[in-house]
Amino acid sequence: METIEIVKSEIRNPQSAIRNSNLPIGIFDSGVGGLTVYRALHERLPHEHFVYLGDTARVPYGTKSLSTVERYAIENAKFLEGHGIKLLVVACNTASALALPAIRAAVRITVVGVIDPGARAAVEIAGARKIGVIATEATVQSGAYASAIARINPTIEVIERACPLFVPLAEEGWADTEVARAVAAEYLQDFTKEDIGALVLGCTHYPILRDLIGDVIGRSAPLIDSGEAAAGEVEALLESSGLSSAQAERGTERQLCDDLDHFYVTDAAERFAKVAERFLGAAPSVLEAVEVWGHDELRTH
Amino acid sequence: METIEIVKSEIRNPQSAIRNSNLPIGIFDSGVGGLTVYRALHERLPHEHFVYLGDTARVPYGTKSLSTVERYAIENAKFLEGHGIKLLVVACNTASALALPAIRAAVRITVVGVIDPGARAAVEIAGARKIGVIATEATVQSGAYASAIARINPTIEVIERACPLFVPLAEEGWADTEVARAVAAEYLQDFTKEDIGALVLGCTHYPILRDLIGDVIGRSAPLIDSGEAAAGEVEALLESSGLSSAQAERGTERQLCDDLDHFYVTDAAERFAKVAERFLGAAPSVLEAVEVWGHDELRTH
Repeated sequence: METIEIVKSEIRNPQSAIRNSNLPIGIFDSGVGGLTVYRALHERLPHEHFVYLGDTARVPYGTKSLSTVERYAIENAKFLEGHGIKLLVVACNTASALALPAIRAAVRITVVGVIDPGARAAVEIAGARKIGVIATEATVQSGAYASAIARINPTIEVIERACPLFVPLAEEGWADTEVARAVAAEYLQDFTKEDIGALVLGCTHYPILRDLIGDVIGRSAPLIDSGEAAAGEVEALLESSGLSSAQAERGTERQLCDDLDHFYVTDAAERFAKVAERFLGAAPSVLEAVEVWGHDELRTH
Repeated sequence: METIEIVKSEIRNPQSAIRNSNLPIGIFDSGVGGLTVYRALHERLPHEHFVYLGDTARVPYGTKSLSTVERYAIENAKFLEGHGIKLLVVACNTASALALPAIRAAVRITVVGVIDPGARAAVEIAGARKIGVIATEATVQSGAYASAIARINPTIEVIERACPLFVPLAEEGWADTEVARAVAAEYLQDFTKEDIGALVLGCTHYPILRDLIGDVIGRSAPLIDSGEAAAGEVEALLESSGLSSAQAERGTERQLCDDLDHFYVTDAAERFAKVAERFLGAAPSVLEAVEVWGHDELRTH
């Protein structure tokens, strides 16, 4: 990591940039968990560059209400739109579940959430069998995954469970401990008793616990990483709209967290860098703390 | 619980009220954890009534930075001061550790934090032995407990450890499970190896896990609940300043969560009520969702 500095972000002109293929892809998350989505996007699209915003001043979203999550999500989306991006990925499952219509109404760029891609991937793999979903309290209460799955195939039964302890387990770096195994056994017991055709990892932190969750669930139920599924959809969208980076033709592939990818957080940049190192094996080269609230009045100071 | 309604709080005139013994005691916390401090205050001062603010829209504070915690704490303190209170208790250990000077500069009433009372109680019990402190990441990093203990007795050695999983364990209602025991054994191993004279529960959630923590630590190290210690100081302060409620003379004792105690949250009132039931065995009779930010411009709408 080269710099951690507190700056007010510049606002670039979004209008002129909407269809510019050389712009970065914007990603926002409630905090550090969305780095698993960044990693999935980077792996799928190694020629693209990214702008990531983690709303670490207001994390987590998973225990908050619809109106609050909507407000935070819109502020994040507008911040990234103002930064100049060609497409916005809402990495946070809770924000995708609760606030996607509000975000789409608030910005002019294409917005991709993680719920629909995750639901589609799960239905594809599960066939006629039940689908399990693990997520935050707010995502489970929203019923967003169940609705998305029902829109594709209304006969599929969906079993959902909130797993709040998975987030601190992942952030503590305890994925590979007996404690984590005991927590997973408790949370996942409803799924191990059932004939589950797929289990959706419906929170950005859960892929960090992927091996553990897979062990506890057993081989019969494949795990669906909604972030990976969303990365596939982003690739298809860029290709179909002619927005893929010209770098792809030149074959330039980039390193995770190199200095073309810009990371913004709304608070506690050092903690973000530490957890990023744990999640990605690399800390961001460019990481800045910004304010995203009151964005309409945001000025460079 | 009789009502959960979304209202903008009225602002009453703080100046005229500063020395009115019949006013409530204000308590704020980052969320639901401060209910353990409310319970301790209620037990110690059954004639007083309370106004509690849980900043559930921005919880937790324990992973956030100094400047952010200061900003949130000042907004909460001003909200409660505007409500008309005779004394403010900062129940949140993180806010007490990071923001007490900023809060005291921002309001005109007496402000009691939980760090100094907890430190004093620990020194009293530990004698010359080491003192253990468990708390949030931010509280541990601030070194507030170590500094407070050093001000009383600079020769005492302090060992601190952040225990982030304790909060969701308490909120899940998992205090009495094997999972919680395994987490506690991991977090507390540094303390069980040492000759600890007292262990400070430096986060409002931890008293919910008191029996478990006591079992793992063993009988040699008494547990110090900073909220209980703060309640003792509040009692002494009220008496010495003539601010004790006149109800005390009439011998009227009140029930926990009855309709004289008003609870405000900044988000997700239903979740707050559910966890309150788990923590206190009773949900608030009067619970309202409010906005506390931009308080200087706060108006009734």
